[in-house]
Amino acid sequence: MLRVGVIGCGYWGPNLIRNFANLKTSKVMTCADLSEERLKHMKQLYPTLNTTTNFREIIGDQEIDAVVIATPVSSHYPIAREALEAGKHVFIEKPLAQSVDEGRKLLALAREKERVIMVGHTFVFTAAVNKIKDLIWKGEIGEVYFISTSRVNLGIFQDDINVVWDLAPHDISIMNYILNARPTSVSAIGQSYIRPGIEDVAFLLLRYPQSTIANVHVSWLNPNKIRSTTVVGSKKMLVYDDVSSLEKIRIYDKGVTVTPHYDTFGEFQLSYRYGDISIPRLDDAEPLKIECQHFVDCIENGVTPRSGGTHGFDVLLALDAADRSMHEHGKEVTIDYPAPMESTR
Amino acid sequence: MLRVGVIGCGYWGPNLIRNFANLKTSKVMTCADLSEERLKHMKQLYPTLNTTTNFREIIGDQEIDAVVIATPVSSHYPIAREALEAGKHVFIEKPLAQSVDEGRKLLALAREKERVIMVGHTFVFTAAVNKIKDLIWKGEIGEVYFISTSRVNLGIFQDDINVVWDLAPHDISIMNYILNARPTSVSAIGQSYIRPGIEDVAFLLLRYPQSTIANVHVSWLNPNKIRSTTVVGSKKMLVYDDVSSLEKIRIYDKGVTVTPHYDTFGEFQLSYRYGDISIPRLDDAEPLKIECQHFVDCIENGVTPRSGGTHGFDVLLALDAADRSMHEHGKEVTIDYPAPMESTR
Amino acid sequence: MLRVGVIGCGYWGPNLIRNFANLKTSKVMTCADLSEERLKHMKQLYPTLNTTTNFREIIGDQEIDAVVIATPVSSHYPIAREALEAGKHVFIEKPLAQSVDEGRKLLALAREKERVIMVGHTFVFTAAVNKIKDLIWKGEIGEVYFISTSRVNLGIFQDDINVVWDLAPHDISIMNYILNARPTSVSAIGQSYIRPGIEDVAFLLLRYPQSTIANVHVSWLNPNKIRSTTVVGSKKMLVYDDVSSLEKIRIYDKGVTVTPHYDTFGEFQLSYRYGDISIPRLDDAEPLKIECQHFVDCIENGVTPRSGGTHGFDVLLALDAADRSMHEHGKEVTIDYPAPMESTR
Amino acid sequence: MLRVGVIGCGYWGPNLIRNFANLKTSKVMTCADLSEERLKHMKQLYPTLNTTTNFREIIGDQEIDAVVIATPVSSHYPIAREALEAGKHVFIEKPLAQSVDEGRKLLALAREKERVIMVGHTFVFTAAVNKIKDLIWKGEIGEVYFISTSRVNLGIFQDDINVVWDLAPHDISIMNYILNARPTSVSAIGQSYIRPGIEDVAFLLLRYPQSTIANVHVSWLNPNKIRSTTVVGSKKMLVYDDVSSLEKIRIYDKGVTVTPHYDTFGEFQLSYRYGDISIPRLDDAEPLKIECQHFVDCIENGVTPRSGGTHGFDVLLALDAADRSMHEHGKEVTIDYPAPMESTR
Repeated sequence: MLRVGVIGCGYWGPNLIRNFANLKTSKVMTCADLSEERLKHMKQLYPTLNTTTNFREIIGDQEIDAVVIATPVSSHYPIAREALEAGKHVFIEKPLAQSVDEGRKLLALAREKERVIMVGHTFVFTAAVNKIKDLIWKGEIGEVYFISTSRVNLGIFQDDINVVWDLAPHDISIMNYILNARPTSVSAIGQSYIRPGIEDVAFLLLRYPQSTIANVHVSWLNPNKIRSTTVVGSKKMLVYDDVSSLEKIRIYDKGVTVTPHYDTFGEFQLSYRYGDISIPRLDDAEPLKIECQHFVDCIENGVTPRSGGTHGFDVLLALDAADRSMHEHGKEVTIDYPAPMESTR
Repeated sequence: MLRVGVIGCGYWGPNLIRNFANLKTSKVMTCADLSEERLKHMKQLYPTLNTTTNFREIIGDQEIDAVVIATPVSSHYPIAREALEAGKHVFIEKPLAQSVDEGRKLLALAREKERVIMVGHTFVFTAAVNKIKDLIWKGEIGEVYFISTSRVNLGIFQDDINVVWDLAPHDISIMNYILNARPTSVSAIGQSYIRPGIEDVAFLLLRYPQSTIANVHVSWLNPNKIRSTTVVGSKKMLVYDDVSSLEKIRIYDKGVTVTPHYDTFGEFQLSYRYGDISIPRLDDAEPLKIECQHFVDCIENGVTPRSGGTHGFDVLLALDAADRSMHEHGKEVTIDYPAPMESTR
Repeated sequence: MLRVGVIGCGYWGPNLIRNFANLKTSKVMTCADLSEERLKHMKQLYPTLNTTTNFREIIGDQEIDAVVIATPVSSHYPIAREALEAGKHVFIEKPLAQSVDEGRKLLALAREKERVIMVGHTFVFTAAVNKIKDLIWKGEIGEVYFISTSRVNLGIFQDDINVVWDLAPHDISIMNYILNARPTSVSAIGQSYIRPGIEDVAFLLLRYPQSTIANVHVSWLNPNKIRSTTVVGSKKMLVYDDVSSLEKIRIYDKGVTVTPHYDTFGEFQLSYRYGDISIPRLDDAEPLKIECQHFVDCIENGVTPRSGGTHGFDVLLALDAADRSMHEHGKEVTIDYPAPMESTR
Repeated sequence: MLRVGVIGCGYWGPNLIRNFANLKTSKVMTCADLSEERLKHMKQLYPTLNTTTNFREIIGDQEIDAVVIATPVSSHYPIAREALEAGKHVFIEKPLAQSVDEGRKLLALAREKERVIMVGHTFVFTAAVNKIKDLIWKGEIGEVYFISTSRVNLGIFQDDINVVWDLAPHDISIMNYILNARPTSVSAIGQSYIRPGIEDVAFLLLRYPQSTIANVHVSWLNPNKIRSTTVVGSKKMLVYDDVSSLEKIRIYDKGVTVTPHYDTFGEFQLSYRYGDISIPRLDDAEPLKIECQHFVDCIENGVTPRSGGTHGFDVLLALDAADRSMHEHGKEVTIDYPAPMESTR
């Protein structure tokens, strides 16, 4: 039974409390928030829960094994650092931290203290994303040529971070996970329309190993909510539409076949395949429940986190590179990874 | 009654012959093609038509006023040059020519000879594109923030030109026309997957005056045929879906309103508007018929061509810049226009 | 402040408790259920709530003004009768009762005791249904020719009632409300596939005054969930798709115009109008909240219930007639209404 | 080489001429029409074609083997009778004739003269309908519980026949064909809104053997063009949407499983299956071409016509029964078939 303390009861915190409270393998002991009113509300929902306005009561509590941090991004680093130093496992809402430097320090500290650090990249726990990863790694898609994603909607404009930091973490986390790879470089172009200095529309171009390229379109300025990911492979193509409730993945058994050997005299041989479309049924378990259970398993059974510190840090590096490219008008920025990639297959 | 000769009876030529033949204001005298079989087929359809395998019979024919060129792009320049020199008006299938230099020479020659030169950018004659232009210029969309287009499908791969030269002319022609503006710079990234050296996927970023930016995604490697253009303005947003047969344009009465004056102490004020959606009924006349009639009107009544040589040349300059940027890994390429923009409002 | 007691804490009861608890104009005093576990759960959510396994404690409580009944349909009548006799106002989940006879007695009793009786036909409190009613009564649709509805999905099969009693109450309630009329006759055909004797697919044909006809298709045996209502009028047509989250109503400005006078020599003159489509933005307030507030208003401010006993009884009469027709292989059954229609305009 | 004469060059005739002219196994010798203008147009398209305003020139021509009749329905019978008497094979546009009596006489005559009679029910030659038939007969759908079809649009109103005679032939032909069965009874209800006495909206309920029931909704008064056929079976369900250009058939691997044996004490056991959806790729050959080739094969190779006289007559009997039921307010009308069903499996 993992004993958990949750810091931050705003928008996302209550979802984490609900899930950790409902698991048979974990128990929420205490929650912290600066607002007495939020705490009162949580107490009403979970009468046995302790509440506090001082997050250090959680960090200092010997009965608590793990700390869940769902506070604004600027406080991720100081709270996580204190928690790790006190010997707690930590679960941090995405993104890991607000700078590459902070992220690096948290990873080092977790390693030193031999504690689990996990980042709330929920998409890697969805049935759809795991289905895509399966299809790729079973070879059904063939070689992945490119991925094109759109994550656009009208608002919600953020006060302090631009649309890249707000929306692109999802796409980068998903692509790194399904490809089991990390982008080697990023180019990005963006524009601020509504609020000076905060980009609300951006296009990213990421190069992955083995000449896979990816295009990410993020926007707070689009009339329709679009959440689509198109994966084009040498054998099949698929479209993942996260807005669709029942038909999230469509697999197209079509593509182009190139005759492997040909000489300069012969004609270049291309043939198109047009085939069936299939829409696999997906499990509809709540991804957040799976994510919370996974955190427990990582701590209690030594499972390697699917969205551990390294995964979160890889995303942070790509976001940072995209941001720098965007401020240099699309100049390609190469990403250096300090550590080898953690396997998630 | 404009007397027309048509050179090239392959894929597109017969459509042009059919339209010029059906107009009450024009007559097709002769058609030329290298294939006897194609000529025989045209003769069967239009028994009064003369046919020839020598295009110079058309150019030399004193009874012919205008020459329509629907041949492969590499022959546009030499044929159009001869026709202009012989004093004919010319209609050239898009693109105008295969290089900026060729295009420039054709424009100069047409000006010198005082002949009409028109390029077959059919989209500017569609009801949908003209509806969008109207909406923008009546102020219903407000300031145009950005345009995002996708023109993707599976194949058809071209032998000699890449996907930018094949598909992007449509998007650039449409955007130049509806904005009544020309891109000042282009960045482009592409990749060749199927045939070495010929890009089959590309992303373009174009900057227009008044901080309008546009993103163009073209691909021969997509499972779905998508032809969509999203225009986001300060007042309204619209999506033009050319694949839809009955509901091509959706206008969203929603957007973001920024309080115009605010100081550093006050909070930034944004309000979202969510409103009705409307789908205007569009006229379903055949665009090519309108285009052919327009060519007649330009010659006989001195109307300024909507897709004249200058419009076609502007598109050529942007394509050329995109191609150069693509071969320099996305470096922003500035476009210099030799002549002021021709008005099409 | 209306003091409410809720009987039945199963599937729907908790939603009613939540809404009456959140209103500023009402307070939930006590809830009753046969299951101690359900009561414990409700107590945890609402610590100040009294709970009991004996519903008569609610009916006998002098502090309680109104009783909300969310129990299985067979107990609607006995509980509502006791509540009315004790002088309580009653809110009954749809349908009003399990037979016409029971429904008639409840109405008579409510009239005798001068108490409000309201039935939980939630659709008449939705923004979409009220928008349609508005459009009809403002004359925008013209004369309503016919209505065609589909309410089909896979399961959930009921133990004791057939698909007509399960799904058709919604369609009949909606149509009676938007037309402000009641069907004069019903024909119905159905079939039992899965469970002998319980129809799981049925088609109803209802005739309304002024030659409006309506077709209702209900089914537990359809791969797709469909909730659509098409209204065809002499001026406009509309489609209400309740499955769509953002575009529930589409209004088609098209139709047929008949030249009013013509003789036997002249040709019959028809002209089609094809026009714009519009998708009105709808308010997204929770219909159940509006419904609960409406119940309070009926009691405290003498408002006539939009889904009062008479509305619920009219629906009951139509269901009963449909059921009888279905068991006579589609024979048209005329409906006699004992009371004039209550106005809901 | 089958030598064909075509009578009627109005709306559909030219399509038949084009297809019979393009086949390698047939040749169109002569076409007839009352309009000189239509004949001139046909001559222009097919210079070697003979034309005549007197259809008897075709019937009397010894060089002609088969007569194709694409005239208004009232003339089907007299022309077909003369052609059969002259020893010609006949192809008649649907429906076979305008009354059951006429249809019966044509069948008898064809049998007596040992000539092929085929009716232009084109849908049975489409890839989609044949795919559905295959799926049913390979057992993939299981027992077919019911079929529900909608064939609705705005107009085109016919002068002389109601919406049942105009649109329902397609649905009845398709259902008879895929089920390899014929309806035993029909109930129908309709209404005339636009033109007095000519129904423009109708609902049919057909009972097929083995308790399959079918619902057919036809209308000239609907804002959307809908062509959908839902087949619900014990194993799978499918939806055929003929308006969709690329995804006509969707097969749902879901349904309800009933535990076969249960007693009155035990609970009724139902389990739902939810599974994948698949969209099979269909051949896109022109159905009319296949139909014309099939007519040639029936004559030259003794193949049994897929839409022969008997099939056309079965449809006629169902239409006649539906019409009679409609004029008796939905009374169930039993259909007696004079001959055993012709196999089309």
